[in-house]
Amino acid sequence: MAHKTDIEIARKASKLPIQQIGQKLGIAWEHLLPFGHDKAKISEAFVASLADRPDGKLILVTAINPTPAGEGKTTTTVGLGDGLNAIGKKAAICIREASLGPCFGMKGGAAGGGYAQVIPMEEMNLHFTGDFHAVTSAHNLLSAMIDNHIYWGNALEIDQRRVVWRRVMDMNDRALRDVVTSLGGVTNGFPSQSGFDITVASEVMAILCLSTDLADLNARLGDIIVAYRRDKTPVYCRDIKADGAMTVLLQQAMQPNLVQTLENNPAFVHGGPFANIAHGCNSIVATKTALKLADYVVTEAGFGADLGAEKFMNIKCRKANLAPAVVVVVATIRAMKMNGGVAKADLGQENVAAVQAGCANLGRHIENVKSFGVPVIVAINHFATDTQAEANAVKDYVTTQGTEAIMCRHWAQGSAGITDLAIRVAAIADADMANFAPLYPDDMPLFEKIQTIARRIYRADDVLADKKIRDQLRAWEDAGYGHLPVCMAKTPYSFSTDPNLRGAPTGHSVPVREVRLSAGAGFIVAICGEIMTMPGLPRVPSAETITLNGAGQIDGLF
Amino acid sequence: MAHKTDIEIARKASKLPIQQIGQKLGIAWEHLLPFGHDKAKISEAFVASLADRPDGKLILVTAINPTPAGEGKTTTTVGLGDGLNAIGKKAAICIREASLGPCFGMKGGAAGGGYAQVIPMEEMNLHFTGDFHAVTSAHNLLSAMIDNHIYWGNALEIDQRRVVWRRVMDMNDRALRDVVTSLGGVTNGFPSQSGFDITVASEVMAILCLSTDLADLNARLGDIIVAYRRDKTPVYCRDIKADGAMTVLLQQAMQPNLVQTLENNPAFVHGGPFANIAHGCNSIVATKTALKLADYVVTEAGFGADLGAEKFMNIKCRKANLAPAVVVVVATIRAMKMNGGVAKADLGQENVAAVQAGCANLGRHIENVKSFGVPVIVAINHFATDTQAEANAVKDYVTTQGTEAIMCRHWAQGSAGITDLAIRVAAIADADMANFAPLYPDDMPLFEKIQTIARRIYRADDVLADKKIRDQLRAWEDAGYGHLPVCMAKTPYSFSTDPNLRGAPTGHSVPVREVRLSAGAGFIVAICGEIMTMPGLPRVPSAETITLNGAGQIDGLF
Repeated sequence: MAHKTDIEIARKASKLPIQQIGQKLGIAWEHLLPFGHDKAKISEAFVASLADRPDGKLILVTAINPTPAGEGKTTTTVGLGDGLNAIGKKAAICIREASLGPCFGMKGGAAGGGYAQVIPMEEMNLHFTGDFHAVTSAHNLLSAMIDNHIYWGNALEIDQRRVVWRRVMDMNDRALRDVVTSLGGVTNGFPSQSGFDITVASEVMAILCLSTDLADLNARLGDIIVAYRRDKTPVYCRDIKADGAMTVLLQQAMQPNLVQTLENNPAFVHGGPFANIAHGCNSIVATKTALKLADYVVTEAGFGADLGAEKFMNIKCRKANLAPAVVVVVATIRAMKMNGGVAKADLGQENVAAVQAGCANLGRHIENVKSFGVPVIVAINHFATDTQAEANAVKDYVTTQGTEAIMCRHWAQGSAGITDLAIRVAAIADADMANFAPLYPDDMPLFEKIQTIARRIYRADDVLADKKIRDQLRAWEDAGYGHLPVCMAKTPYSFSTDPNLRGAPTGHSVPVREVRLSAGAGFIVAICGEIMTMPGLPRVPSAETITLNGAGQIDGLF
Repeated sequence: MAHKTDIEIARKASKLPIQQIGQKLGIAWEHLLPFGHDKAKISEAFVASLADRPDGKLILVTAINPTPAGEGKTTTTVGLGDGLNAIGKKAAICIREASLGPCFGMKGGAAGGGYAQVIPMEEMNLHFTGDFHAVTSAHNLLSAMIDNHIYWGNALEIDQRRVVWRRVMDMNDRALRDVVTSLGGVTNGFPSQSGFDITVASEVMAILCLSTDLADLNARLGDIIVAYRRDKTPVYCRDIKADGAMTVLLQQAMQPNLVQTLENNPAFVHGGPFANIAHGCNSIVATKTALKLADYVVTEAGFGADLGAEKFMNIKCRKANLAPAVVVVVATIRAMKMNGGVAKADLGQENVAAVQAGCANLGRHIENVKSFGVPVIVAINHFATDTQAEANAVKDYVTTQGTEAIMCRHWAQGSAGITDLAIRVAAIADADMANFAPLYPDDMPLFEKIQTIARRIYRADDVLADKKIRDQLRAWEDAGYGHLPVCMAKTPYSFSTDPNLRGAPTGHSVPVREVRLSAGAGFIVAICGEIMTMPGLPRVPSAETITLNGAGQIDGLF
């Protein structure tokens, strides 16, 4: 039987009206703000009304280091949510929104795959409910107001060379990375060197995802540092008086979005910060709301566990006072083989030895997650080429790590393929075995925080940072930012900063090239390698073949 | 009694669920795509299903040349729609969407005023249903794909100096008017001089508003000229293969938006092209849909009748095969006085002589509109300072022009204040007195079209255009664009190109500085004066005082 494509499966889905999905969670129609008949936002008033309810169990889905073979983290998140519902549990999922720009480069699909998808997938990959457009507008309003302030006399005495707030666009457009603005004469302002990032890299996006309510959002927006004076004192967004209007632009975007899985279970899809210069998780508001409405909430974090789970624990959980009950680490036998040194072209061949060699990567992630005091279970996302011997090799290895690996066939079978995992995850969560704590306390000096992550998660021998960087960190401590967590920006492909170093490397060092203060979001970014904040399009962008077909359906997006 | 502000009135409105507004027009719930509970889009399928129904009567609201005193064209459009409903007619209104960017500069409010407003006014001035964001994304996708094509080898042999497609942002941001992109080295492309316009100035916006359906939209997008080769041959959007993906991005934006007036009557608010370099009317799709669903459709055109009504007739009606049954010219006594030479500070003083002097401006608009074969009536939008003698002066003057002027108090009283006008407008429309024809035939040479508008509408003696411009127009004729209408871009404040020349000037000449081909939208733009396509923010932008108040309401937007 020929496999159906994701989009073929999604088009055949029998969607329920979003009103009925809301009813499953006890949300009255007046508190659902519909966007079409299959998407809705949940009103602020309703979200606020939930404060005194008990929380459900939080389940984090993370993964080994990504390889070109693909791991299926979102697919497993969606599948596990459906699986929990299938075994009679009241469960919801929480994932990030997709970025519009990259969809026109490579084929999209941030909504799961196979029989474990969130729908409507086309709209989730396009404008969805407009949240990213709102972030773009809010960000660029601040940019315009900074330049406008300088234009009309610069009462705040901003050093024009030290404006650190760029512009954003939700588009892959390399031409905008580095631009000179305000050319053309007196009426256009003062020429200055600047640039655009993609919207998901905006600090506004991180703030949206870390704010607990509109008042917190407004305060954090006000805290953004937009520029410095000649004396190096910072100029804040609130000095520019942009925070109020930005909050207004983001009012609706702060409301969590509700959609559904192929099996008509509730899915919260809200926010989408970068997983390198930001923390890479869906919004705190969505996660907290889901926890009030469901007994089990399955969520995911960007990249592998070394970046995604670490930031989920140390940034999101710390700020939101959340504690995961259990963590699922997703692995595939194909990815194990790649970690074991097999080339992509040879992944179809059985190779137990390579699988065994690649398991070291998985093993370290298991150990790392456990160090947060949280129980771990491994989900093997099944591919048709997997052999029994290879599967046994992973299972045996995981057993030696003191946990268990369960084969999951949700991609091909939906919830029916993942009930084993669902039963075990629910049992572990119900047993309240977790004793969660972040990796470092708030009051640890900033450079020590970086060292702690590098040594305990990446297993590096050392962190390299020249005096200028260490002085900067101390200056931020003196300025009152020492309590912030650090947000590591490094390659997702390795525990080290060398993307080609697969498996479980040791003996490496982590060079910190640059540090940045995201004072509104509330973290220090430590940049360890080349970080691209505005992607380009490939030679043949997928946009060239995206069209409406005769039936008004979108072809070429997936 | 202290007058309530527009926003106070709007907040006290008793809105009906948008489902009920749809029901009034016979639109089933599945064909309404809700955006919250008070806004909806109308499905393509439903719009297409209406093709064989008879059309209602089309009523155009236009105005004298705008003055700082304000005319209230949108307010009168909304009031007349409510007035027609109040006298038992089935009427709908069609207006443009507001642009987000300018809202943060000056206080907004493109939704009428007083007791003649469309609601929800806050959202109409912010993200609304996302149409403008979709236009921005579609426009900038094309920009990114052009630069990406050049980056990857430039197979189309685009002359990089002759890329005519800029970028857009829905923001007042003077710093973006003139920029150099692709700085920073090899991986960022080839440095080039470019810039941003505000989204409403995008040709994509004009195309959205002039397309009859998605297939027409796709074809028009493909027709956009984005660049020229060294041999001056044009490169089209379809050569870049961006048209399909742009159509996908605009699919939802093509669906007309339905909202309501304060009196719960249906209002179509869709599209918003600039009224200078574009044609300045709401979408053809919205107008045609409204005509199928209502017996009377009241719509408006941007600026005064010299620009707005002229383009409505010669561009929109020509392309959409529409014919207005009656035209309402809005005037105020205050504006008559300003046209008669009174300063703004003195408008509160009775001055019958100045009113009489200013009537010349109104008279010429009446004559012009009549020259299209359409009956005209004048609405005097009442202000508290108007005196009976002044009102009589206008009425007497209008009678000498062979038509009538009716005092309207919809701003203060809603539909009850405008029933006299509604009764007369309905009677004129029902009498089928119009014998509409555009001002010039398709096959008139382009330069003659410009001359025809300048002589017959502006009453200029002559059009000045140097050889280069006339050669360009002939070249476009040779290239097959000679059948297009012309879209005049000149100051709205005078019949002439001098904004200070009020009243009804004669003996002037119209200098054409530049001509542009909007091959996708389907018109030639003749630029006669400084046209600003990216506004700036004022010294104290209104954004500084826009905030959410304690009740979650938006303060400072109006």
